[in-house]
Amino acid sequence: MAELQQTLTLGELSDALGGECIGDAGFVIRGVKPLAVAGADDLSFVTNPKYVAAAKTTQAGALLIAKDSGLESAGLNAGLIVVDDPHLALARVLELGFPESNRETGVHPTAIVGKGCTMGADTSVGPYCVVGDDVVLGDRVRLGARVNVGDGCVLGADSAIYPGVVLYDRVVMGQRCVVHSGAVIGSDGFGYASATGLPTKIRQVGRVVLGDDVEVGANSAIDRAMLEETVIGSGTKIDNLVQVGHNVVVGEGCLLCGQAGIAGSAVLGDRVVLAGQAGVSGHLEVGSGVQVAAKSAVLQTTTPGSIVAGIPARPIRDWQRQDVATKRLPELMRRVRQLERAQEVKDVDSDQDADSG
Amino acid sequence: MAELQQTLTLGELSDALGGECIGDAGFVIRGVKPLAVAGADDLSFVTNPKYVAAAKTTQAGALLIAKDSGLESAGLNAGLIVVDDPHLALARVLELGFPESNRETGVHPTAIVGKGCTMGADTSVGPYCVVGDDVVLGDRVRLGARVNVGDGCVLGADSAIYPGVVLYDRVVMGQRCVVHSGAVIGSDGFGYASATGLPTKIRQVGRVVLGDDVEVGANSAIDRAMLEETVIGSGTKIDNLVQVGHNVVVGEGCLLCGQAGIAGSAVLGDRVVLAGQAGVSGHLEVGSGVQVAAKSAVLQTTTPGSIVAGIPARPIRDWQRQDVATKRLPELMRRVRQLERAQEVKDVDSDQDADSG
Amino acid sequence: MAELQQTLTLGELSDALGGECIGDAGFVIRGVKPLAVAGADDLSFVTNPKYVAAAKTTQAGALLIAKDSGLESAGLNAGLIVVDDPHLALARVLELGFPESNRETGVHPTAIVGKGCTMGADTSVGPYCVVGDDVVLGDRVRLGARVNVGDGCVLGADSAIYPGVVLYDRVVMGQRCVVHSGAVIGSDGFGYASATGLPTKIRQVGRVVLGDDVEVGANSAIDRAMLEETVIGSGTKIDNLVQVGHNVVVGEGCLLCGQAGIAGSAVLGDRVVLAGQAGVSGHLEVGSGVQVAAKSAVLQTTTPGSIVAGIPARPIRDWQRQDVATKRLPELMRRVRQLERAQEVKDVDSDQDADSG
Repeated sequence: MAELQQTLTLGELSDALGGECIGDAGFVIRGVKPLAVAGADDLSFVTNPKYVAAAKTTQAGALLIAKDSGLESAGLNAGLIVVDDPHLALARVLELGFPESNRETGVHPTAIVGKGCTMGADTSVGPYCVVGDDVVLGDRVRLGARVNVGDGCVLGADSAIYPGVVLYDRVVMGQRCVVHSGAVIGSDGFGYASATGLPTKIRQVGRVVLGDDVEVGANSAIDRAMLEETVIGSGTKIDNLVQVGHNVVVGEGCLLCGQAGIAGSAVLGDRVVLAGQAGVSGHLEVGSGVQVAAKSAVLQTTTPGSIVAGIPARPIRDWQRQDVATKRLPELMRRVRQLERAQEVKDVDSDQDADSG
Repeated sequence: MAELQQTLTLGELSDALGGECIGDAGFVIRGVKPLAVAGADDLSFVTNPKYVAAAKTTQAGALLIAKDSGLESAGLNAGLIVVDDPHLALARVLELGFPESNRETGVHPTAIVGKGCTMGADTSVGPYCVVGDDVVLGDRVRLGARVNVGDGCVLGADSAIYPGVVLYDRVVMGQRCVVHSGAVIGSDGFGYASATGLPTKIRQVGRVVLGDDVEVGANSAIDRAMLEETVIGSGTKIDNLVQVGHNVVVGEGCLLCGQAGIAGSAVLGDRVVLAGQAGVSGHLEVGSGVQVAAKSAVLQTTTPGSIVAGIPARPIRDWQRQDVATKRLPELMRRVRQLERAQEVKDVDSDQDADSG
Repeated sequence: MAELQQTLTLGELSDALGGECIGDAGFVIRGVKPLAVAGADDLSFVTNPKYVAAAKTTQAGALLIAKDSGLESAGLNAGLIVVDDPHLALARVLELGFPESNRETGVHPTAIVGKGCTMGADTSVGPYCVVGDDVVLGDRVRLGARVNVGDGCVLGADSAIYPGVVLYDRVVMGQRCVVHSGAVIGSDGFGYASATGLPTKIRQVGRVVLGDDVEVGANSAIDRAMLEETVIGSGTKIDNLVQVGHNVVVGEGCLLCGQAGIAGSAVLGDRVVLAGQAGVSGHLEVGSGVQVAAKSAVLQTTTPGSIVAGIPARPIRDWQRQDVATKRLPELMRRVRQLERAQEVKDVDSDQDADSG
């Protein structure tokens, strides 16, 4: 698959990455592939120490490795680019080798744009888009086909909205945001007064605000606040099918993995990681740097830097110990039964002693 | 954010809510805000006893409070509206203060409408909608942009369908239903005959029927029945990313929170609450009034009124006790080991006793 | 609901199913209904031994039953069709009785089709579709309304794409695939380099490849690979709201039930079943024939044929035993406390013995 759209030599690439080039600097890289399938024309990469062994048998013509990988002196046939952080360097390689194609700019004749909109330079509005009134699109904003942008939305420069996205009214996003197909931003929060009888809807009059460099995955949903703002901080990345409830505040640089969910009015600090299918209950705080394991449920305020797991979530070490213990629980029950039997025997003995005493 | 679109005086609002007005009835309310951010021109609210303390320090010019909140006599500077149920009253405040804007009615010229459709008075069909044959839209039904309505669908009066929704053929909904963007109603149930070889699709020929006042959240999916009807009862509210399988029957006034899922042929009574990410297995009954805690999995028929938690779900008190015990399980294992050691010592002692006896 | 679009006699149907007809072969079947609601003109069915009792009281005029059901000799009034596999036979009945209506073919005038596309015979492209460049649609492919097909996609013959689906660039699917509304295939994988500072996006340059007879449910999302291919094997059926991460490889004939999720780079064998809301962690293998219970989380490589449950997933028998034990855990703690008390008494006794000794 990953044949470079633009070939590069080992030396050029090494320079671009600020790395050390070992081997033939003129070697031409034609593709970027995983260790197992890379061939003589390909660059592969070792972004994780656990792949060092596989690197020794790869057919790749060139390898991107970390300084401390120990592979420099492993006598490999491949040309090498040695860098501090090969994961970050790989991101750069793919940017260089697979440049984004130029898209047409302008408003497609089938797009419907409301009154009072402001369009930056080189914006593009795809076919069958429906853009409301008083919308602001920053420079180079791209709306794919069939995007719906509600009244009063503001999209920062270089943001890209994929086909089929719906932004309800008054969504604000910063620069370089990416919203994938099927995502819905600004939908009604799930708020009802239900003390008596059937639930009565509480009108949701707030909005959603995304910072810069936020990415929202396919078919995710972010509800607008009841009164104020649902906020996603700059640099936060949201995977597919993630639910963010109304009034939620997510800090900067967080990673919300697939099918994670955050209930209404929860507040997340910066660099929080929710692994896949994790959940955060409403009206609580998750401190900066907290990592929540897959499938876990945060049901109470969690101190910064904690790594938690389980339902309800607890420190991961505790959860692991408890899980080990749970696996031994049927055996433990047998052992307790045995102790009880021994106890009964003794009681009988001591009764007999007493009798015979 | 929440500046009123239509200002109201304290007295007007109190009258509209059937409340008791304490303070300057002529005070003009300009916004509705949470306690922490409300200012001198704003109304705030105390819908929950746990916010009573915060109410004592708010800068809000006016407060909506409950009769039994004890705040009447707290010497607050704010004007007061005293009501029985401030949550319900807040719902009314937002209706009054943020009236829905009048939308254009009529069929947008880009909408495609099939044969034999019946349109009620003041319906609106947005741009790029595709409406099939023999569809009935009740009075004042609103279809946002890019809505797909399959053949033979019937939508009751005052229902609102947001952009991008897809209704498959023969979906029926009552009055005042709301369906949010990205929701899909009437898709094929997940039914396969798979005794041998690859799964063989079983054609799904039923339909979906929603009662009155049903709300379906963004990107939720409700499958049609294999033969008969998947039913969502009147007044039931469904949050975002919820899955409802084929043949499911949900009663009235239920709340299905974000990412909850109901497997095929399950039957829920009235006023059932599924908290976030909860699941209900197929072919079982969940009695009226049952509440299922977040992340829990109902794997068997559950009696009316139960509050359950866990995987599999059990009475929540049991689950809590078991969770407390699980946290102490590693310690329990040490204690049992200690008892066993004591036992071994005794056995040795009594062996020795026997030897020396 | 399920009145046959095409009536059939008992004899005709029995012949078509290769079954044995018992009773009046000329009996005209007008509907197909579940046991509880079927009437004198309807065929009902017993696909599961647990419905044998209900079959004895049904009002159905005809019944589809299994050879080994014991119902042949039960003296029922209904006409009978006796087959080896009534579930599979039911699939055939519904195909015969509810034939798909003929849809119009051709490209709707509002559809936008790019350059260099190849259209097979009798393809249909619905209103407001946007098809990119160099797309190949096989014979009889149907695109519903508002479908987005990215550049370079290839759709095999007889595949059907429902309204609102988005295929990103270069998605390849085999023959007879079905993709339901709201599904997104080929979206960016969730890949970031985040060793230091904010997450840096890693461009995702791979693609998604579906085999033949794959079905993808409403609002599901399948990410494209970082470099190579995300693969869904032939005959695999994916329910609604399922997440498939980048680089995942799913084998043939798998069933991924509602809201299941598979994290990046996981590899599933053939005929794997993920029950509802189950999850599979990244970079691991799930062997052929593995069944994962609802809500469970596979966190490590799992051997073929295992049936697993729990978080983390373990053999289901172990999980069941541990669950039973967990329910008795509070009682166990009391019993251990009692043993300790008895122990303390003994220690006191033996101290006293020692004192008095």
